[in-house]
Amino acid sequence: MKARVTVTLKTGVLDPQGEAIRHALGALGFDDVEGVRQGKLIELDLADTDPAAAEARVTEMCEKLLANTVIENYSVEVI
Amino acid sequence: MKARVTVTLKTGVLDPQGEAIRHALGALGFDDVEGVRQGKLIELDLADTDPAAAEARVTEMCEKLLANTVIENYSVEVI
Repeated sequence: MKARVTVTLKTGVLDPQGEAIRHALGALGFDDVEGVRQGKLIELDLADTDPAAAEARVTEMCEKLLANTVIENYSVEVI
Repeated sequence: MKARVTVTLKTGVLDPQGEAIRHALGALGFDDVEGVRQGKLIELDLADTDPAAAEARVTEMCEKLLANTVIENYSVEVI
């Protein structure tokens, strides 16, 4: 069973990496880009076969390791 | 208009960052995780209002800057 976790910075948290991408896009002529935010995508292969159990387990992984819940939001999707 | 780009490593390309996450999860007791791959998620705010034009423009950004097409796949989703 596969799970996909997306981790994004919370609104209001500065994102210098996104800002650097926006600047680089502007330098390449893409000046219609008003804002860029960069997040992480983590794909997990799990031994679990029960989707509900897998989702609970991955949420626990997010809370403990994958996301910094002070500044980041995460979402879990079991595929 | 917003666009979401996901950039993932192609199959067969080594992912040391994903491997490090898998190892850390194992150390935390999540030993049922068989594999981890880490990718990037880039959210763009665009001035474009036409979805088709926005998608074409973001695809061009991916080819030129956002993804390294030798080792990475990307997908574009206009929201």
